[in-house]
Amino acid sequence: MALKVVALAGGVGGAKLAHGLAQVLPPEDLTIIVNVGDDFQHYGLSISPDLDTVMYTLAGIANPVTGWGIIDETWQAFTALEHYGEDMWFRLGDRDLGTHLLRTHLLNQGLRLTEVTQRLSQHLGIGPTLLPATDDTLATVVNTHEKGVLGFQEYFVKYKWQPTVTELIFEGRAAMSSEVQIALTEAQLVVICPSNPLLSIAPIFAVAGIRDALCDLPCVVVSPLIGGRALKGPADKLMRELGYEPSASGLASFYADIANVLVIDEHDGDVQAAVQAVAPTLHLYQTNIVMQTLPDRQDLANRILSYVSEVYL
Amino acid sequence: MALKVVALAGGVGGAKLAHGLAQVLPPEDLTIIVNVGDDFQHYGLSISPDLDTVMYTLAGIANPVTGWGIIDETWQAFTALEHYGEDMWFRLGDRDLGTHLLRTHLLNQGLRLTEVTQRLSQHLGIGPTLLPATDDTLATVVNTHEKGVLGFQEYFVKYKWQPTVTELIFEGRAAMSSEVQIALTEAQLVVICPSNPLLSIAPIFAVAGIRDALCDLPCVVVSPLIGGRALKGPADKLMRELGYEPSASGLASFYADIANVLVIDEHDGDVQAAVQAVAPTLHLYQTNIVMQTLPDRQDLANRILSYVSEVYL
Repeated sequence: MALKVVALAGGVGGAKLAHGLAQVLPPEDLTIIVNVGDDFQHYGLSISPDLDTVMYTLAGIANPVTGWGIIDETWQAFTALEHYGEDMWFRLGDRDLGTHLLRTHLLNQGLRLTEVTQRLSQHLGIGPTLLPATDDTLATVVNTHEKGVLGFQEYFVKYKWQPTVTELIFEGRAAMSSEVQIALTEAQLVVICPSNPLLSIAPIFAVAGIRDALCDLPCVVVSPLIGGRALKGPADKLMRELGYEPSASGLASFYADIANVLVIDEHDGDVQAAVQAVAPTLHLYQTNIVMQTLPDRQDLANRILSYVSEVYL
Repeated sequence: MALKVVALAGGVGGAKLAHGLAQVLPPEDLTIIVNVGDDFQHYGLSISPDLDTVMYTLAGIANPVTGWGIIDETWQAFTALEHYGEDMWFRLGDRDLGTHLLRTHLLNQGLRLTEVTQRLSQHLGIGPTLLPATDDTLATVVNTHEKGVLGFQEYFVKYKWQPTVTELIFEGRAAMSSEVQIALTEAQLVVICPSNPLLSIAPIFAVAGIRDALCDLPCVVVSPLIGGRALKGPADKLMRELGYEPSASGLASFYADIANVLVIDEHDGDVQAAVQAVAPTLHLYQTNIVMQTLPDRQDLANRILSYVSEVYL
């Protein structure tokens, strides 16, 4: 059965499931829309952390230990910067720098981020289409109790997401690119990958039109939590800080108007009643959602697509 | 004897003698004015090849094999760019990239190249003052028989200086910085290092005021030729193409209104008569000018300063 799938993804966890989907779907049937709220400029370079994580993961060159960055990376350029007395709170690897140099160069030549991403991912041999959520500037800004307003990378990398978040702001009036618009028009299923709902998915929703388009599409959300804890990163902490319980029912209420199926871990116990209280029509699918190995990714993608096809579509 | 020396230098050969001078003069008595005609933009980075060669040489971190670039360099970033299908006619090393990233960043913040160079060289522990010949844009452009007009790096790196040069053009109206002006006002001796007269020194002369200031100062020129051949690079080829004999008398006529002493190699034979025919008052000093080892640099600097002090000053 040919099924046009649009996946939404942020960083490491989302990239893993996107990689699984890429292994089970024909490339022309999969489009991955990626968060750009974390994008920023560093030493004049245009950095797109989530796009790169998804790109490197699908290309099979991601650092298997960290999940982000490139395997067999070296750090000579930024070590040199350190010797020049620079404050090294955000380091870029040497191989990774090749990506940022080319992206920045092509953007300066007038290409859109969508076109740049297409060119980079083609050269890396990636079959599915990777799309930034928008070609416009959309910056996630974090208001915190302890440090006031912080840029995303300051909050996330410099302060290691320790400050208490009081508000998330998505700066900029971002519109969908024609590529995102077409992908959502043609989509028969949306998969929201196990990414941080507030930091990775919410900024995608902040692009004008995306949330509305999703409301009209069959949508399966894969939880980034197990037993109330994020598998990686601050999803649970941030959900708590911004008024969502870090649980299946918290996710159900966050995705209330969008999700038709919620995939949670088999060890999360019986949460059916709690979820139904928040989202009466939501289908709950409990399975092993941990992706430790490469086959785990493909396996989870297969189970999700089978479940959705049999039970929901 | 305290002697305020200004040295003019281009790339590898000039940097070696500048390094020698740095070892025999107190840091406060040596200013090195460096060619910026080769400077260019590459992937959005501001590259100053001659400044970097002099800087790395004086810092003791130059690649001893090539004379330019940094020792123990790696090439991961530009190998990544190559995997993205980029044409790699000009590669930058990873450690070297640290310099270009910081220089570009500081220039974009509004610092002058002179200020940036000062900051970089201080962090590298360099004592003498390194000054770009100008803070303005001054671009060496090469008109060639075979390929028409070429940017300097295209001519030098892409086409390996093989096209026949019909004309050199120094684009831009460049003025002296106040730092260059003060250095030339205070100078008691000018040493023109063994750099290509047409590609490295002529663009320094193209900065308004520098040539005039040099005419009023005692000046020793160190030949970049031995037996009519450049020790490195295309000095002889280019002199021939632009109407100068690649010899002591060719140098004497190129530097006629500036040089008081010309230092040539001991193996160049008896050229006294030929030189005097072109420059009757020029002092000729023949000595071993080859700098193969680190002590050779200091040694040549010492011999030149002794000769000039005894015979000329």
